[in-house]
Amino acid sequence: MKFCSLCGAPVTLRIPAGDNLPRYVCDACEAIHYQNPKIVAGCIPEWQSRILLCRRAIEPRYGLWTLPAGFMENGESAVAAAMREAREEANAVVENPMLYGLYSLLHVSQVYLMFRGQLRDGAASPGAESLEVGLFAEEEIPWEQLAFTVVRETLRQYFAERRTGVFNLHVGDIIRESDDRFRVHHYY
Amino acid sequence: MKFCSLCGAPVTLRIPAGDNLPRYVCDACEAIHYQNPKIVAGCIPEWQSRILLCRRAIEPRYGLWTLPAGFMENGESAVAAAMREAREEANAVVENPMLYGLYSLLHVSQVYLMFRGQLRDGAASPGAESLEVGLFAEEEIPWEQLAFTVVRETLRQYFAERRTGVFNLHVGDIIRESDDRFRVHHYY
Repeated sequence: MKFCSLCGAPVTLRIPAGDNLPRYVCDACEAIHYQNPKIVAGCIPEWQSRILLCRRAIEPRYGLWTLPAGFMENGESAVAAAMREAREEANAVVENPMLYGLYSLLHVSQVYLMFRGQLRDGAASPGAESLEVGLFAEEEIPWEQLAFTVVRETLRQYFAERRTGVFNLHVGDIIRESDDRFRVHHYY
Repeated sequence: MKFCSLCGAPVTLRIPAGDNLPRYVCDACEAIHYQNPKIVAGCIPEWQSRILLCRRAIEPRYGLWTLPAGFMENGESAVAAAMREAREEANAVVENPMLYGLYSLLHVSQVYLMFRGQLRDGAASPGAESLEVGLFAEEEIPWEQLAFTVVRETLRQYFAERRTGVFNLHVGDIIRESDDRFRVHHYY
């Protein structure tokens, strides 16, 4: 950020009075421009013993597999956002979504809200952001071709837990340790 | 938003190619400025049969009672944000936080993540944003003096459920029906 989005004057990064973190503050109108984490809402669409994955037609991670997920919009419900992403990326209708994972990705200031839900009729086809979509049994999951650590972690928990028949909410942080190495901190 | 935060030129609200919602787009550098919901992280600090509330020393809702909660920061974990707010607003240490409520406030584009946790030593005192803090038994909750619908709803669920001895995650939307009337939609 270099300019004030309200008046167009330059901004300076400084700690406003009464605050304890640097913010972009307008040199002219003194507006404080807070920057906050974004929410990514997504889901695990279930169909019998399979789950739906999408192969990405966009960067980053073009060509790799992921769960339907994307940025929540203003004025939207988190639940609706997760269902919308399934519709947009895979023409999939997800029913009865239940929150399954809450992950904070510190290095990109994103919070993932991952829901588990039933894929209506097992029906799906690629949306504009997907090269292909598919229903995968556990032994078919392309573990080495998954797009993101948060997706791998969500699926790992999901299949481990499915054997027990009880799904519990998982809360964790994903911390970047180097360019391509991430650590998952589990709260529970 | 009137000006591009990257180059200072005017922005226009329009639907970018390949998108389906209006965004602020820079007339000069063509940067697209997405706006997304903000996360408010908070908690219910528990101490024996009481919970901690804070009386607000800031607007909005100056003088009314609330749970410790505030905007999550970039680079922060959602869990850490909830604990930080308890520390800042009530000098309170909250242990073992468990997600208890996920509420989308459509009219202000906020997502509340409310955790339940134990207040260490029952110790609390007003932080800079609180006039006073207090530990309340259920029959002492100032229901008519609560600052926000999301706080009232969270506490209502909490006390109803505490009688059963089992706490479940609650997911809902809070919808403004008029200036001072809100409706809660419960997913579960």
